[in-house]
Amino acid sequence: MSYKYAYNTRDIKFCLKEWLPTAEVLAYDRYKDYYAVEDLDMIIDQVRKIADEVLAPIADDGETIGATWKDGQAYIPPSWHKAYRFIQDNGWGTSNMSFEDEGTLPTLIYGVIYEIMIAANPAFMPYVSTASGVARMMQLYCSDDIKAIFLDKCLTGEWGGTMCITEPTAGSDAGDMLSKAYPTDDPRIYKIKGQKIFITSGDRDDLENIVHMYLARIEGAKAGTKGLSMFVVPKKWVNEDGSLTDNDFQCIGIEHKMGLKGSATAALVAGENNQCRGWLVGDPPDADGNAQGMAQMFNMMNGARLDTGRCSLAVMSNAYWNAKDYGKERVQGHLLTNPRAGRQTINKHEDVKRMYMVNKATTEACRALLTKCYYYQDVANWDPDPERREWAHDRIDVITPLCKAYPSDEAWPMIAESIQSYGGYGFCEDYPVANAARDCKIWSIWEGTNYIQALDLTGRKWSQKKGKAFAASLKEIEEWIAANKGNIPGMDRELAHLEKALASYKEIQKTIWGYMKNPETLGFMGVYARRVLTATAQLWCGWLLMDQALVVTKRLAELAEDHHEYSYYKGKMLSIRYYLNNMVPNVWHLEEIIKMADTSVLEATDEIFDY
Amino acid sequence: MSYKYAYNTRDIKFCLKEWLPTAEVLAYDRYKDYYAVEDLDMIIDQVRKIADEVLAPIADDGETIGATWKDGQAYIPPSWHKAYRFIQDNGWGTSNMSFEDEGTLPTLIYGVIYEIMIAANPAFMPYVSTASGVARMMQLYCSDDIKAIFLDKCLTGEWGGTMCITEPTAGSDAGDMLSKAYPTDDPRIYKIKGQKIFITSGDRDDLENIVHMYLARIEGAKAGTKGLSMFVVPKKWVNEDGSLTDNDFQCIGIEHKMGLKGSATAALVAGENNQCRGWLVGDPPDADGNAQGMAQMFNMMNGARLDTGRCSLAVMSNAYWNAKDYGKERVQGHLLTNPRAGRQTINKHEDVKRMYMVNKATTEACRALLTKCYYYQDVANWDPDPERREWAHDRIDVITPLCKAYPSDEAWPMIAESIQSYGGYGFCEDYPVANAARDCKIWSIWEGTNYIQALDLTGRKWSQKKGKAFAASLKEIEEWIAANKGNIPGMDRELAHLEKALASYKEIQKTIWGYMKNPETLGFMGVYARRVLTATAQLWCGWLLMDQALVVTKRLAELAEDHHEYSYYKGKMLSIRYYLNNMVPNVWHLEEIIKMADTSVLEATDEIFDY
Repeated sequence: MSYKYAYNTRDIKFCLKEWLPTAEVLAYDRYKDYYAVEDLDMIIDQVRKIADEVLAPIADDGETIGATWKDGQAYIPPSWHKAYRFIQDNGWGTSNMSFEDEGTLPTLIYGVIYEIMIAANPAFMPYVSTASGVARMMQLYCSDDIKAIFLDKCLTGEWGGTMCITEPTAGSDAGDMLSKAYPTDDPRIYKIKGQKIFITSGDRDDLENIVHMYLARIEGAKAGTKGLSMFVVPKKWVNEDGSLTDNDFQCIGIEHKMGLKGSATAALVAGENNQCRGWLVGDPPDADGNAQGMAQMFNMMNGARLDTGRCSLAVMSNAYWNAKDYGKERVQGHLLTNPRAGRQTINKHEDVKRMYMVNKATTEACRALLTKCYYYQDVANWDPDPERREWAHDRIDVITPLCKAYPSDEAWPMIAESIQSYGGYGFCEDYPVANAARDCKIWSIWEGTNYIQALDLTGRKWSQKKGKAFAASLKEIEEWIAANKGNIPGMDRELAHLEKALASYKEIQKTIWGYMKNPETLGFMGVYARRVLTATAQLWCGWLLMDQALVVTKRLAELAEDHHEYSYYKGKMLSIRYYLNNMVPNVWHLEEIIKMADTSVLEATDEIFDY
Repeated sequence: MSYKYAYNTRDIKFCLKEWLPTAEVLAYDRYKDYYAVEDLDMIIDQVRKIADEVLAPIADDGETIGATWKDGQAYIPPSWHKAYRFIQDNGWGTSNMSFEDEGTLPTLIYGVIYEIMIAANPAFMPYVSTASGVARMMQLYCSDDIKAIFLDKCLTGEWGGTMCITEPTAGSDAGDMLSKAYPTDDPRIYKIKGQKIFITSGDRDDLENIVHMYLARIEGAKAGTKGLSMFVVPKKWVNEDGSLTDNDFQCIGIEHKMGLKGSATAALVAGENNQCRGWLVGDPPDADGNAQGMAQMFNMMNGARLDTGRCSLAVMSNAYWNAKDYGKERVQGHLLTNPRAGRQTINKHEDVKRMYMVNKATTEACRALLTKCYYYQDVANWDPDPERREWAHDRIDVITPLCKAYPSDEAWPMIAESIQSYGGYGFCEDYPVANAARDCKIWSIWEGTNYIQALDLTGRKWSQKKGKAFAASLKEIEEWIAANKGNIPGMDRELAHLEKALASYKEIQKTIWGYMKNPETLGFMGVYARRVLTATAQLWCGWLLMDQALVVTKRLAELAEDHHEYSYYKGKMLSIRYYLNNMVPNVWHLEEIIKMADTSVLEATDEIFDY
């Protein structure tokens, strides 16, 4: 038994109750009769309890039993069957995707309770999230015919779901996929033939059916992503009387992974005997061969990207909190600053405190970024004012690549710090941090690698709406700085750092745009893209944390030092300072590196890497 | 089967044959009749072949079978028994530790062939290196009585060896250990009682005996490390007739680790029945209770620290070379700079090239650092001029913490880049990079955590010999810069970066020393120590790589572009440039951060980390 759940929800509550305008979201027509800010504590505490009592105790089964495969069938750990039903039946899962049912949770709440649950059992939760993604897609894009058959079963979690994109020869470049779709006599239904790999929750033994959102190319459609259509391909075909029969859809194996071992990552074959059928989603390709599948799939993928950031946040936070719990108990060594004080628990040592602080600051930064994105989503979905909705949509576009890539990049070094603080025990699987490191590594890769996120940012998001959407987001930061200069006691230097970073960021943009104009320097965009994404996230997080500092410094001024909440706010102030003084300077340091225009990568031929 | 050996020895040959004054070492009396620079290719190629044919094919057994434990006995994978004997019997192992036998390898050669072998099977080689460490210690510190019994058996590898320091309550702080030694009627022999954990190669089934260099406190000796004595505690007691009998020394289990699973990490109990005996090494504690054990052990530990850096270098290099091999085959996506060129192998993509380059530059930097240290060791051991020997000793003292910590810090992010370049397959254990990540994580922890290395650097090494030794090493870099300004064609900017980094480094030192004078700011030394160590390594590596550039640019000027060696030198020039333009600037960036004197970590109380 190694898994240990050590989550603390105080910062989540801060984000929702003290920082973001949650009341504004809960006042939308859709929510006003169901939720009030006063309910948040209860909801969060209840989920924390479920995570602790239902999800965490079975997390080890994901490692010791794992997902397995035999004779064409994937199996999940037996203890997970009941937990899955519990989550789905009690309103914490896919039912929240319903557009029609009342009482579903706003993204702002669903987002954070999902973080709390992921941390308790990271390999388990994809079984819920993939089903949820499909339920959402179905309502957005599927015809009533399809919804009549599948939707209710999806919303209750009775049937699972997946997103089937990747193929053996088409990963990052989905446009190269080989899956094909052939018309049948029923124009709504196609024969499907192809192979998919790396499909999360792609097969499982606890549900009678799985609904695959499957990308394939209809004969005659365009090459590349533009010619792809989406199909609802069920594992078992649903007959008119509701009975299920084989749909020639096989799970031929699951991956042997370094982490997330309880999550079945399946290889699937559709139509080996030419008997696999799928329902076309939306219209067939138009006269020019353009199809709608990829655009539809992007909706699901953007959700999955946000979820990837959330997984990274959840797992690194849990590793950090485990580390600090351990540090309170473990006695080792003498203090640098006071060696005569005798042996100390390791949480007193400067470098251990630094390891905790870098984790605390980074996780709080990621949480600020993600919860802000949840807020934008609620505004984009439900605000009555179309201008506000557009504003929120623009912001979501800008920060989605940051939400996916920044936490998933940081998880690796952050969890390494947590391991380091355990000493040799951190390397032992009996302690709960090695598995966090193993679990987290996929998140910088799947749902579009972090390089793809970086190109999405610099290639697409910077120039969307002729660059106006991105420029407006920078303008918002600029105006915030102007409005708050001198307003945050004891944080003048930190605010100056934010201002300097913003100026540098504009220089970075100008420099990269300059490189992009010239074919000889265009490659710099690729060479620097990932570092630019990191700097973008650091600028954004720096801003959001300073915005939090407005609240934090006010609270600190109100509270006495012996108030039971004082430590939280004091710690929050320190981690904000740490972030602004240690991470945000990377933005101007990167400006210097980028302007240097070192050509060593661009000049590199294939051959030089043989050595 | 996932392990894949993809080592390339060209850069090793460059370091030994073209860069370092290897001929000078081989001209020492000890070596002159045995080795010439012309032999190096043959030796290296032969070891590369052994690594490929003997060690790499059984590497997977370390993962699939692993080290196991049953009924008081640890077992290593059966296929490793024969390979161990092969390495020992053919002169590639412990026999090279002999001070008396002729024909042993200089450190410069032994160091690099060891790198080549580690990369082929990282969990296997500690069985050799721990035995080698003991053989060396025995000759340095043990009486003839002890040597007569143990030395030959150690040098042939017939008996294994370990370094027994860590205990359940004493890891980083060895001085707190509880192991005790009690006198017997024979003043050379003590009864030993205690428990040791995390003992690498602590038990194994393929050898009849294991010689433990065991630290314990003799009754009446001082508290702390100063009161520790070293004992030779064999697993089986060696009777006068050479027969072996039980020595009340038990292996009570091995660790379940995230990596290096073939390497048995043992928990050992000495004297549970008060029947464990050990030979005292050196003298008993003096009248003040001062003992010699820790000072003796440091010799072995310094060797182990260098070896830790070498392990890190070997494993990250092998991961990188696997990644670039994969990148040549894997077709995916279109080029940013030329999308119309159609699908490409991934090694053409800018970010993939960057991932390779950051690995190539970092591994070459680490190799420069380590091979330079091997060179210093040969000079320190065998140069006839005592001043040269002292110079070399001083340099070894300065760079040992860098050699241990810098490669072991970098291995984690570097291997992550190799995993990333594989895409989803990098997360799958069927490919040879996930295991590299799992293996490497212990190296930043064992043999003194990297924080301990950082304090050793800033606390001890900076001020050794009243600061003169360290200052002399900076002076050497300064003089090198002055002597070579303008001498390295096309590298003026890179040399300017080195010069700027050196100036910044001096500022960093001054700033930290300033902090150390004041009790209120003394803690900054701990907060910044690890980052200072990294910057120190970057300064050193920047210098060594620029020193290599002197050779590289000359070769490039001599060779035609179609010469089969051109790519190597061209690539070397590019990775040196990459390092100086992308890593070395961290030194002055850190200067800025350190001067900022952000107090957030120092102000942090235990409580703030509960959130």
